[in-house]
Amino acid sequence: MTSSQADDGSGSPTIATIAAEVGVSVATVSKVLNGRADVAPATRARVEASLESHRYRRRRRRCADAGEGQIRLVFHEFDSAWAMAIIHGVEALTAASNVDFVLSQLGGRHHPPQQWLDAVLAARPLGVLFVLCSPTQPQRQQLRRQCIPFVVVDTDSATTASVPTVGSNNWNGGLLATRHLLELGHRRVAIVAGPRDVLCSRARVAGYRFAHDEAGVPVDPDLVRYGTFYVDAGYEHGIRLLQRPDRPTAVFAGSDMQAMGVLRAARRLGIDVPRQLSVIGYDNLPVAAWSDPALTTVNQPLRDMAETATRMLLDLARGATLPTSRVDLVTELVVRESTAPPARAT
Amino acid sequence: MTSSQADDGSGSPTIATIAAEVGVSVATVSKVLNGRADVAPATRARVEASLESHRYRRRRRRCADAGEGQIRLVFHEFDSAWAMAIIHGVEALTAASNVDFVLSQLGGRHHPPQQWLDAVLAARPLGVLFVLCSPTQPQRQQLRRQCIPFVVVDTDSATTASVPTVGSNNWNGGLLATRHLLELGHRRVAIVAGPRDVLCSRARVAGYRFAHDEAGVPVDPDLVRYGTFYVDAGYEHGIRLLQRPDRPTAVFAGSDMQAMGVLRAARRLGIDVPRQLSVIGYDNLPVAAWSDPALTTVNQPLRDMAETATRMLLDLARGATLPTSRVDLVTELVVRESTAPPARAT
Repeated sequence: MTSSQADDGSGSPTIATIAAEVGVSVATVSKVLNGRADVAPATRARVEASLESHRYRRRRRRCADAGEGQIRLVFHEFDSAWAMAIIHGVEALTAASNVDFVLSQLGGRHHPPQQWLDAVLAARPLGVLFVLCSPTQPQRQQLRRQCIPFVVVDTDSATTASVPTVGSNNWNGGLLATRHLLELGHRRVAIVAGPRDVLCSRARVAGYRFAHDEAGVPVDPDLVRYGTFYVDAGYEHGIRLLQRPDRPTAVFAGSDMQAMGVLRAARRLGIDVPRQLSVIGYDNLPVAAWSDPALTTVNQPLRDMAETATRMLLDLARGATLPTSRVDLVTELVVRESTAPPARAT
Repeated sequence: MTSSQADDGSGSPTIATIAAEVGVSVATVSKVLNGRADVAPATRARVEASLESHRYRRRRRRCADAGEGQIRLVFHEFDSAWAMAIIHGVEALTAASNVDFVLSQLGGRHHPPQQWLDAVLAARPLGVLFVLCSPTQPQRQQLRRQCIPFVVVDTDSATTASVPTVGSNNWNGGLLATRHLLELGHRRVAIVAGPRDVLCSRARVAGYRFAHDEAGVPVDPDLVRYGTFYVDAGYEHGIRLLQRPDRPTAVFAGSDMQAMGVLRAARRLGIDVPRQLSVIGYDNLPVAAWSDPALTTVNQPLRDMAETATRMLLDLARGATLPTSRVDLVTELVVRESTAPPARAT
């Protein structure tokens, strides 16, 4: 177990000790602690270093006082339906708890700019929920010092146990989707995964490989592709894969949006889904149910993930200790109309 | 012109006058003014009535002090891509102004519950942005008394000039879409509008009728339908319309989501779009560009609407006077692949 505010700072030096050591005023140390912007960067760095070397923490009493009744929800970027599922989950739980949430996005960055974090430190919210982004190690220390708990939803890199994280079992999702296709009789199964530098993409590819190994079917490396999670990437990889003379009979996409792109590519090339090509998506967004054909996909419980993360955050804000710092929710296959046995075994 | 805080309250009675008239303490009047919950409903109603009869307003000076650097963004309900376009616009402008926004939704209600408003009154945000919902007349008075400006984005009913509103020209959108179909040669054009109790739906139907009148083509009342803005409504109306012996050769839908439902209905019935049926959507959400066929639609500049409304709100919060209280942005037709001349003239 780990909570983001486990250390109550007993035995910490006083602000005066820090100030004397660094050779600045008590007010300056206080400003740094309060995330105020009006401290010269060099001075701030020296104060931060001293605070860190003393493992300075605000006292628990101060922690219990923290918070203005709001949480911050920050996305690495908004993309329509995926982000909306997360927002729905956060809203459901915060509304029930009479807590407001402030929404922001990092314009595609995976770590917040320091200016953004400084504003959060100054505002002292109940906590911060990071979605597909996370604070850097120094930023984590700053948040902890201010007694502002944080939880990460999904993650683009392996997290340490000290960062409370909610995800879903991506490896299992990759396994379930690929196993379904292999069991239908497919032997040339392509995967269009998400970005290669995102852990969840590689975890799904690992599940895809595991399913192949399990079935004794070799993986053709040419059929493993990486791209963004959007429609365009699915379309472009789809066109290239489906124009090959030895084209795959099934494509497992990294998102429902990518799968929409693959469906579009198939239609452009006159390839019928599911008769001549099976397609599986990932996420189970609303579009999966009403697309034509309706999409077989891996349900990623985004809303549940958001609710779970929000609950963890509110628990931390109350000073509770989390039973576990890493929660992965279950993924499951939802079979609809876009998958079928291959036309002929190859 | 009208601003939501035009009256600076000069000549207003003092709180003591109100307290004496109602027969309560000054503290009680102050609590009502500050949106505090700990006042008996009956007492609150009497204080409100007295404040109203005296047209009590906080002094402008107090107004300039108001606000914690946040705005509230409240939706009648979230629906994925449409709401996300609005959120994007608000985020772009607030981020540039270093203002945070707190997001909430009313679970489908068109007016906020009093409890929600009381919390807003107590929090004293810079302003409130209502999307597809609006404060009731008494709630507008409460917001004005607290010097909390508000702006409404789109609207489900005719607004008074005293409510700053940003919309788009729905009548014009209905006209452009229908004119396009009539010019292609269609003579049986159905419209699946949004809900009948929402002004924008009726405005688009009026534009549809006007285009028919203009072209001297009679409107068949059986081809005018109302439903929710979602995929299901488009699908159900689509199935019913397209199974008629005298089925329409074109359908103008009230949203891109409805149009997706119509496309799905057409595929189910083996009707080719656009060869045997033309379909037009409304909104120009991202799905319109990547659906198959890509959707001809009316561009509703949602992001621009949100930015305009946010700018108005921040101007009001600064104490500025708006040049106009009602802004309608331009709608325009985006022709893609889902419209074509009818197979045969009827």
